[in-house]
Amino acid sequence: MAIEKITSARNQLVARLKTLKDKRGRDKEGLMLIEGGKMLAEAVDCGLKPVYVLAKAEKIEGLSPLFAGTQASIYEVSENALAAVCDTVTPQGCAAAFVIPDDMDDDIASWPGRIVALDGVQDPGNVGTIWRTADAAGFEAIIAGADCADLYSPKVQRAAMGSGFRLGRKSEPNLAKRLEELKNAGYDIIVSALDGEEFYSRGLIADRFVLVVGSEARGVTVEVGLQATRRLKLPMRGGAESLNAAVAAGIMMYELTRGL
Amino acid sequence: MAIEKITSARNQLVARLKTLKDKRGRDKEGLMLIEGGKMLAEAVDCGLKPVYVLAKAEKIEGLSPLFAGTQASIYEVSENALAAVCDTVTPQGCAAAFVIPDDMDDDIASWPGRIVALDGVQDPGNVGTIWRTADAAGFEAIIAGADCADLYSPKVQRAAMGSGFRLGRKSEPNLAKRLEELKNAGYDIIVSALDGEEFYSRGLIADRFVLVVGSEARGVTVEVGLQATRRLKLPMRGGAESLNAAVAAGIMMYELTRGL
Repeated sequence: MAIEKITSARNQLVARLKTLKDKRGRDKEGLMLIEGGKMLAEAVDCGLKPVYVLAKAEKIEGLSPLFAGTQASIYEVSENALAAVCDTVTPQGCAAAFVIPDDMDDDIASWPGRIVALDGVQDPGNVGTIWRTADAAGFEAIIAGADCADLYSPKVQRAAMGSGFRLGRKSEPNLAKRLEELKNAGYDIIVSALDGEEFYSRGLIADRFVLVVGSEARGVTVEVGLQATRRLKLPMRGGAESLNAAVAAGIMMYELTRGL
Repeated sequence: MAIEKITSARNQLVARLKTLKDKRGRDKEGLMLIEGGKMLAEAVDCGLKPVYVLAKAEKIEGLSPLFAGTQASIYEVSENALAAVCDTVTPQGCAAAFVIPDDMDDDIASWPGRIVALDGVQDPGNVGTIWRTADAAGFEAIIAGADCADLYSPKVQRAAMGSGFRLGRKSEPNLAKRLEELKNAGYDIIVSALDGEEFYSRGLIADRFVLVVGSEARGVTVEVGLQATRRLKLPMRGGAESLNAAVAAGIMMYELTRGL
């Protein structure tokens, strides 16, 4: 197979893929960029569809088997062309544009029982770390309100480490409304609250539940808080007033799925 | 009280405090820099000794009560003088140099029972987040091996959010040797291992224990691993191969101190 070479950062495909750094570009192209061999393997493994693969000469041979069964076009790229496309300062020699997979259906009847919801979590590292932990803890879907870091941004994907696409996903312009709908369908809506019940003394939680993670600075919004069926608080023994959002979410997610 | 004004980033005190960004400067001066009003209050509250307080004019009055009972010298500084000293891009109008408090004694007989040990955790954000979570979970000391981010760096302190100084601290050039000593004194040495026992099925842990957190990329070192009395593994249900180091540490710390 002849592999096309790209040696200029001003190449047309490079220019197009550069736009994927921003949400507007991703929305327009319907593509997201994933960087680094390990994450590319994870993404293919999750069933994501690769469209363009960019790799430096020495990486081509190693990557070929991974993309052999796919429709992807592979390009051999120069260092500077790859760097122009990538979000990282020192790209790991390869990157690929994947089709952004569909969100879950609007009909919640098909939704799974263990969901994490992000209400204004703006730090991309926190969003990605929560996503990765949700996957490991056995959560089945992630839903993101309007003010969250975009799930498909390179920084979120880097922190998620490519593992998240086993989970269903949904962007929710009106998170409170969706939570109300889920509550009415029998889901417990679990919200962290400083004046909530002690987390480890909580009573029974419904089989289907949503753990809501609030913003780093302000917690959950008033509208979202109103949808809570359970208000819980992790014990804080020392002088710390709060935990990092991703750490708090991780502690709660692992505890909520324990034994399920 | 007359307050001295500093209007130049080339002022001699500013030049001295700038050196606190690096470990070498902190070691030489015996001082560390803490930024932002909330963290300054936490630090004073923890009993740290402030030496120099730098504040913009509009912050002076609000800060004065906090430092009233201390020996600190307060300076009114210009924006650019403050920015020269601070590690953050947009300093929050005030910062102070505090005496780096003493490490715990070398005699472990005086050490507390719940300790977190860092073995090559290099990311300052992770180190600070682990420290902050340790405080909230009720851990009593943090010990850091040779290859860790420095506990007193501004980035670590920012992630720790000033809450960590209730915990004992100790830098350990030879962490494995210290863990061996603690093991011989009856501590359980708990290490994460991919082939370890399931964390939630673990048997009884000794009253005194050390949770060892390994490096983000390579886990614990061989020498440290050899000191483990318990090798545990958090369940991983999805496709994620690992958790973020601070998240994994948080889940384990909260679980280990639960009910204690």
